Amino acid sequence: MNLLLLEEGDLIADGRARLAGRRHVHIREVLRAAQGDELAAGMLNGRMGAARITHLDSAGLELELRLDRDPPPPVPLTLVLALPRPKVLRRVLFSLTVLGVKRIILVNASRVEKSYWQTPFLELDTVRSQLMLGLEQARDTMLPEVVLRKRFRPFVEDELPGIAGGSLTLVAHPAADASCPRTISGAVTLAVGPEGGFVPFEIELLRACGFRAVHLGARIMNIETALPSLVSRLF
Amino acid sequence: MNLLLLEEGDLIADGRARLAGRRHVHIREVLRAAQGDELAAGMLNGRMGAARITHLDSAGLELELRLDRDPPPPVPLTLVLALPRPKVLRRVLFSLTVLGVKRIILVNASRVEKSYWQTPFLELDTVRSQLMLGLEQARDTMLPEVVLRKRFRPFVEDELPGIAGGSLTLVAHPAADASCPRTISGAVTLAVGPEGGFVPFEIELLRACGFRAVHLGARIMNIETALPSLVSRLF
Repeated sequence: MNLLLLEEGDLIADGRARLAGRRHVHIREVLRAAQGDELAAGMLNGRMGAARITHLDSAGLELELRLDRDPPPPVPLTLVLALPRPKVLRRVLFSLTVLGVKRIILVNASRVEKSYWQTPFLELDTVRSQLMLGLEQARDTMLPEVVLRKRFRPFVEDELPGIAGGSLTLVAHPAADASCPRTISGAVTLAVGPEGGFVPFEIELLRACGFRAVHLGARIMNIETALPSLVSRLF
Repeated sequence: MNLLLLEEGDLIADGRARLAGRRHVHIREVLRAAQGDELAAGMLNGRMGAARITHLDSAGLELELRLDRDPPPPVPLTLVLALPRPKVLRRVLFSLTVLGVKRIILVNASRVEKSYWQTPFLELDTVRSQLMLGLEQARDTMLPEVVLRKRFRPFVEDELPGIAGGSLTLVAHPAADASCPRTISGAVTLAVGPEGGFVPFEIELLRACGFRAVHLGARIMNIETALPSLVSRLF
């Protein structure tokens, strides 16, 4: 936890907060902080700065806040990602949050197993807690938006053109001829397929929507390695 | 498994191999391949190409090999990595192999917990099987070299100058003033600290050895996100 992430419900007065539960235990037992110590802190979807511990006991702690700066700027990427298998999904949501990606659209694809859509890791609270852990790791406060689209074709044909409008549109595809561009200054919409890749029909739908297929070199990456590689290369 | 990785012991004659065990089960039950099918294949530390299934039954399979091309070129990086916690270590070894990193030196550091050195994931066979899985994912055949150095200071002072000689020497450090350079053409030696980072004394030892501290932006990345980001940015 590199940032103590606070929510409206934690505030007890202007510039003061009270915590119990996971964050209290972490501050006490892992960080071993004491009264008077300062921690990096931020309000969820708000500003960042420092929190000074004004009181700490076994039941909870109280903090005095000085939130005087903005969170780091978002990465201007909309990611259209074929739903990964559940345990990969959890780590991917964490990692994307750490990278500063703020708009994630999880889509179905031919090689996405139907059972993946049933995972408890897709429940709102579980997704949200992975995103919060990512913000705490990264020292960021802006919660990414995660949306689900279970029908690929209507999504690509009807909704994606509006989402992608004006951005550079790319689909990561190991069989592509062109390599992924580097250090883009504007917004990017990037589609990334499942393990085994998008099938040719899906690539064609994306091409028809203006997406250009690009690769990341000769090696075929797993999704957890590919996503940070793509984001780091693009921005 | 994007590549069937063969070893000398699998060969039964020139250009012919026989398999049983994990790879046989995978080919039969996951890939659902049949006699006559061709699979991407390669010899460990050797050439790559295709393997045609000449016989397949419940006991094993036989293959005819046509290995006519070299594996992808290695990434010219020597990574000096503070030993991560065990379950992260496994995924990191896999991911580094997928990225094409061929030289990994796992070192101790002040914030590496002593218990991490006791993990069974550091046993030779276990490390090797993670690297092999990475090669199978990436479609590569060149096994990375992984070495362990349990004493940081003697390693940095006595051994690292010889290892790093002639390469660009960088240490990833969230508090650095300079950002990590992009698209390097030559060799790089990169040091990456543990969760919580190298302590100031360790950074000073690395600086004295010619290492320049660089960051990856305003967000603090976990190691699994940072490594692909660094490799993708550097090369």
